[in-house]
Amino acid sequence: MNAPLAVPDVAEIADMRALAARLFDELASGSESGKGITRECFADGENRALALIRDTAVEFGLRHHTDRAGNLVVALSDDDLTKPALVLGSHIDSVPEGGNFDGAAGIIAGLLCLIRLAKGKVKTPQPVRLLAMRGEESAYYGRANIGSRALFGLLTPSDLNAKRRGTGRTLREALAGVDADVAAIERGERLLPLSFASHYLELHIEQGPVMVARDLSTAVVTGIRGNLRHRRVTCRGEAGHSGTVPRWLRKDALFAVADLLMRLDEHWNRLLERGLDLVVTTGVCNTDPELQALSRIPDEVYFSFEVRSQSFETLEGFYELFRSECRAVSQLRGVTFEFDERVYSEPAKMDDAIVGRLSAASQRLGYPAELIPSGAGHDAAVFSNAGVPSGMIFVRNRNGSHNPNEDMTIDDFLRGVELMYSFVTGGT
Amino acid sequence: MNAPLAVPDVAEIADMRALAARLFDELASGSESGKGITRECFADGENRALALIRDTAVEFGLRHHTDRAGNLVVALSDDDLTKPALVLGSHIDSVPEGGNFDGAAGIIAGLLCLIRLAKGKVKTPQPVRLLAMRGEESAYYGRANIGSRALFGLLTPSDLNAKRRGTGRTLREALAGVDADVAAIERGERLLPLSFASHYLELHIEQGPVMVARDLSTAVVTGIRGNLRHRRVTCRGEAGHSGTVPRWLRKDALFAVADLLMRLDEHWNRLLERGLDLVVTTGVCNTDPELQALSRIPDEVYFSFEVRSQSFETLEGFYELFRSECRAVSQLRGVTFEFDERVYSEPAKMDDAIVGRLSAASQRLGYPAELIPSGAGHDAAVFSNAGVPSGMIFVRNRNGSHNPNEDMTIDDFLRGVELMYSFVTGGT
Repeated sequence: MNAPLAVPDVAEIADMRALAARLFDELASGSESGKGITRECFADGENRALALIRDTAVEFGLRHHTDRAGNLVVALSDDDLTKPALVLGSHIDSVPEGGNFDGAAGIIAGLLCLIRLAKGKVKTPQPVRLLAMRGEESAYYGRANIGSRALFGLLTPSDLNAKRRGTGRTLREALAGVDADVAAIERGERLLPLSFASHYLELHIEQGPVMVARDLSTAVVTGIRGNLRHRRVTCRGEAGHSGTVPRWLRKDALFAVADLLMRLDEHWNRLLERGLDLVVTTGVCNTDPELQALSRIPDEVYFSFEVRSQSFETLEGFYELFRSECRAVSQLRGVTFEFDERVYSEPAKMDDAIVGRLSAASQRLGYPAELIPSGAGHDAAVFSNAGVPSGMIFVRNRNGSHNPNEDMTIDDFLRGVELMYSFVTGGT
Repeated sequence: MNAPLAVPDVAEIADMRALAARLFDELASGSESGKGITRECFADGENRALALIRDTAVEFGLRHHTDRAGNLVVALSDDDLTKPALVLGSHIDSVPEGGNFDGAAGIIAGLLCLIRLAKGKVKTPQPVRLLAMRGEESAYYGRANIGSRALFGLLTPSDLNAKRRGTGRTLREALAGVDADVAAIERGERLLPLSFASHYLELHIEQGPVMVARDLSTAVVTGIRGNLRHRRVTCRGEAGHSGTVPRWLRKDALFAVADLLMRLDEHWNRLLERGLDLVVTTGVCNTDPELQALSRIPDEVYFSFEVRSQSFETLEGFYELFRSECRAVSQLRGVTFEFDERVYSEPAKMDDAIVGRLSAASQRLGYPAELIPSGAGHDAAVFSNAGVPSGMIFVRNRNGSHNPNEDMTIDDFLRGVELMYSFVTGGT
């Protein structure tokens, strides 16, 4: 559904479109890698991108400063940063050889809103600030949301000791390199003043295929899925010659895993029918590469397990089903299951009032007012779980993210900016 | 069930037991490799073992000669080899690092029967000969039953050009090295005179777990399972971020393969209930090792497919079910299946009359008279498919075969020899 742009002033549309296109182009040309876009966090790529945002802020008469975690804050010139603001945030870094829009779309959207407020001398019910964060992607240091976690004192010593893949430089050294307050971060101090953010709003490209499939240019995010995972589950049965072992004497580890997956698939389907939010994935599944053979009944199969949901109860409930089906399959097929460490990532709920206001604004603009969950993690989850009422706007994007083929149209982007501006000027 | 040995003459039992133990010991000590037993075909290991059988034949007044395929024939001294015989056959080679019994048990059993006939000057209804064959295992040249196939003119040029793994020596060269008539083999000539074998009987250790599970010391084989195989089937779906793609938009290649396997498992179970002979195996199943990740919906899964049965109709019927379930899963889950070459190995039926006489002999001896299929291939299949009425006796063995832990007791072996001797002296 291609909603109208719904901006009354045609010249203003043209201005915004031209500025957005210019900024995306300049960002891209400053971060082209051999293949796709690379803006490495706490390194040159990210620094150049932040400098572009800062220079553009100056060009349009906005003020800026760098916070204690090395993130960039942009504000209107009359904002003394003492009153709690509606923070428009996202991240400026990218994965290696990724696309130009994951993260940057939210930064440019926030910047365009501030420029429009400044140009029109528009009064908002509360201050509006842009927070351009560093290090959201986990690609280099194995930890996501570094910039936002640092603000809330959530980086652990093991996070800080994590070494960049390839070079061995620690995250601690990387943070020091951008003048972050490493000592305070080390102490787990909350670096973001309580008075800084009353609300948080993030625009981001959708990283899944739902909005393309359902023809939605923008959508309102209800929550960010958390997950429960095992990196490696081992199913052990008994090897045997495929010709000589009859069915009643088999302990086939692969048939056991297939049985388990189909049981989970059936539960998944039923729980969706009951309206629960749930995705289930086994991304890795292998018979033993050293021993596997056409005529050898597999005795060991290694697989990963992941369930994601916006609801903690759904995650735990499905995990219980998983373990109980492992027990049932063990009994039925004479195999055992062995589990490595269970890893939990917390889901985050978007604020009901913000979701409601974003939906209402969508309707006012003639946009679709569909609600969708976010399957990937975002800085908004960190703000929400830290107690800052948060919301997210998704913009349609083809081909997923974290690859050079990210594909958001400028029209869809401007619809997202319009929805953000409408929210910003509507008061919280 | 531990049946009595049922040999009337106690001294004779003691002689046979001592001789069997001596021969198995000498065979083992002549073919010990770092780990287990190695009697490489058309090479020193196999040659040494054949020499031991030949020397033992001479020691007990038997005659011997080498046939045109390099196999060893042992006969009573008054057998002029002109009349069709009951051939007691098996193979003398082993896989690398295998066990002492796979193949050799049948050779020693036949030799003991001939020795007993010679010592007792027993008249049999027809000549009885031992055929100690070379090259039954496919481990070195990728082709099984080389010794028996050569006898029936069944080796192809590509078989002869096959190179030994490791050295690159061709099978043609290996055959020439043991003075086989390579030119005739090359022409596909039948080397075994039609007058040589009227019947074929092979004793072999069971390579599966059925006889241990059902407590059978000996069993009569009904047939040798053939198979239909694909070395590699590729299921292709669509990759995606595990958090962002909902169930209705997924084309998960792994869930598709799991679905397929469970459908096949259900068919398998139902067909067994209807009394069909069938085993189904997927020995290899892998998500793409380059691309697989915990949070990546698998777009490609590679797996092998194998169905084995004594019945050609069952093989073809099950294969049709396999392809039709692939089509059903494709439709349901939005994936495709791609198949490499279908490979067929013919099943072989044991002769009804021989099976009946072996069962009757088992009952006379107070042994179990259970019928079981052979899941692995044997030279008996080559004889049977070449039109020689054939039978097999299985002897209980723990831990499967093709490994150093093959475990046949001398008591069970002597029961098998007794059953063979009873058959041999009972006339065909």
